[in-house]
Amino acid sequence: MSAQKFEKRRAKVIRQFRQHEVDGLLVTNEKNVSYLTGFSGEDSYLLLNKKQAVLLSDSRFTTQIEEECPDLKTCIRGPRQNMSGMISQLVNQSETSNLAIESSSMTVQALEGLKSVLKNTHLKPVSEMVENIRLIKDREEISKIKEAVVQAERGFESMKASLIGTDTELQVAHQLEHWMRRFGASGNSFSPIIAVGERSALPHARPTYGLISGSGFLLVDWGADHESGYKSDLTRMIVTGKVSSKLEKVYRLVLKANEKAIQAVRAGVRCCDVDSVARKIIENGGYGKKFGHGLGHGLGLDVHEGPRVGPTSETVLEPGMIITIEPGIYLPGWGGVRIEDDILVTKEGYEVLSSIPKGWDTVRIGI
Amino acid sequence: MSAQKFEKRRAKVIRQFRQHEVDGLLVTNEKNVSYLTGFSGEDSYLLLNKKQAVLLSDSRFTTQIEEECPDLKTCIRGPRQNMSGMISQLVNQSETSNLAIESSSMTVQALEGLKSVLKNTHLKPVSEMVENIRLIKDREEISKIKEAVVQAERGFESMKASLIGTDTELQVAHQLEHWMRRFGASGNSFSPIIAVGERSALPHARPTYGLISGSGFLLVDWGADHESGYKSDLTRMIVTGKVSSKLEKVYRLVLKANEKAIQAVRAGVRCCDVDSVARKIIENGGYGKKFGHGLGHGLGLDVHEGPRVGPTSETVLEPGMIITIEPGIYLPGWGGVRIEDDILVTKEGYEVLSSIPKGWDTVRIGI
Repeated sequence: MSAQKFEKRRAKVIRQFRQHEVDGLLVTNEKNVSYLTGFSGEDSYLLLNKKQAVLLSDSRFTTQIEEECPDLKTCIRGPRQNMSGMISQLVNQSETSNLAIESSSMTVQALEGLKSVLKNTHLKPVSEMVENIRLIKDREEISKIKEAVVQAERGFESMKASLIGTDTELQVAHQLEHWMRRFGASGNSFSPIIAVGERSALPHARPTYGLISGSGFLLVDWGADHESGYKSDLTRMIVTGKVSSKLEKVYRLVLKANEKAIQAVRAGVRCCDVDSVARKIIENGGYGKKFGHGLGHGLGLDVHEGPRVGPTSETVLEPGMIITIEPGIYLPGWGGVRIEDDILVTKEGYEVLSSIPKGWDTVRIGI
Repeated sequence: MSAQKFEKRRAKVIRQFRQHEVDGLLVTNEKNVSYLTGFSGEDSYLLLNKKQAVLLSDSRFTTQIEEECPDLKTCIRGPRQNMSGMISQLVNQSETSNLAIESSSMTVQALEGLKSVLKNTHLKPVSEMVENIRLIKDREEISKIKEAVVQAERGFESMKASLIGTDTELQVAHQLEHWMRRFGASGNSFSPIIAVGERSALPHARPTYGLISGSGFLLVDWGADHESGYKSDLTRMIVTGKVSSKLEKVYRLVLKANEKAIQAVRAGVRCCDVDSVARKIIENGGYGKKFGHGLGHGLGLDVHEGPRVGPTSETVLEPGMIITIEPGIYLPGWGGVRIEDDILVTKEGYEVLSSIPKGWDTVRIGI
């Protein structure tokens, strides 16, 4: 990406300074640093004020910074200088009197350390100054998330094609990551959920040594981490055994909720109203109390980011937001069904980024 | 592990209350919660005071808590109650007036949230109250770390046996994780460093699409994550091409530093004195300025934890500490050599937990 793009992003942050009554921001959240500079390493901060942007890092990253953000002013600290010392030097030079810090990522200890060296600067905890901008994805971000979706989907299809009944949940998890890497992913975007039978009723089940043929179906919730850091997040069901009428009924209901909610996505609509479309369908089907989580969430450099798509989220959808739509029904002791897609909000409506078939007739496999 | 074991660990924390002038501790660091309770899930806190220990979690983890810590008092919050609300209720009931919080993991935002609901309780940022206890490993912890070492070593030997010259650094990284999982690991204990030729001079090189046969040697720094959460961390060199006399000279020097430093490990010795043994050998060999990091670090639930083993670390080694010994020499533009083992400190001296051969005659492979 061009240096101008990052400069524009930083300008959007700076425009929020007045509202927060600050004249600078210390960006410490790694994803936010990356978003505002293009630098993908760790342990590095961005000091931003109206005059300049300075990346603070150490000698491990000198080469990487030259490659990733050659136009950015950089301070590399020596082995005997600590980060606080470098920050205080720069802040004092820049005459920043009210410096915002990112309260949702900075630890109490780090803030105490900063306060002890920045005696003439007021440190003001703020949140979401960068996250607010990250809500809307630009063309390059969208294209990377699309690639992350393709990596996840090709990985899933390859894993599914090669399943055998003696595979365990853990083996499937490992195979899935292996295949996604083959298609270019750095790895999982989160620890995948591979949950057979009644384990699929646990929203955060971890893969076990249980056989995937141990029950009639399994839930797979997974995603790819693109090398740029952008993520995908999908859920599909796989039916391996005899089809029960209960499974078919629950599946078709969740699918309807998924499809109708996707069709409700459009710029100008509130997130809670999209959630409500899915929730009403599941309620009318008699499973209202068995859909215990929000409908979805934003997706980007973090696999969970804004906007929240839940019953109380008043956020209005805007073109360029990318969200998951993932209704589910969970019946303890029996199992759960969830179907999740990644959706781009457009001016006219929506674009479904994911494409793995989800019709009831596509879910059964012979193993 | 038995419930008594966790109770004893919690008692060790409580004994530090007086020194910190507090009558309770809110444990928010996930590893610390796990260490004090046996619970391995996320997003759960432990509230500890002289009267009781209460695990605060949500309904996703009800079943898991019953399995992992059935004897522990637990509060599960409902979908409409937030963590702060639950904490304030319990703290007020327990009449805690000075509550310690873990300043090195709690965010500024989380502390602000707590302060707003705990108006009658003084919140005191402290650090290392649990980490101090974690320094010394008990028999079960040692046995799990030994298993994590075996997983890493068997994974490495399998990966090494199956190397071909057309493998890329990334493929080797993936193969390594694949093999470690086969031997029972949950995965990597950190993103492995697979660095060919001059890339091995970068202490934090990420695997690339570069061929492993692209230069005469590669550095592999990797570890296994045992399902219990305990980690291993090792480094070995692999020579794939013509052996240069420079490589042999540097390798033998690093090996000598590694071996002599290990022999210096013993309860009662300061960490800086162990560091110094390796550092002097490398200095005397003429590469003193090319060994730019500390000699090692503690290893446990975190892959980097106390004690720090560096030139300024006055910590005295005690039986039950587990540390890495990892001297290195880095020559920009040419490459780096590092050799790393995991060492248990014993009363009499040390036990080397890792066993992959490291003699100069063992490093060359034909590919």
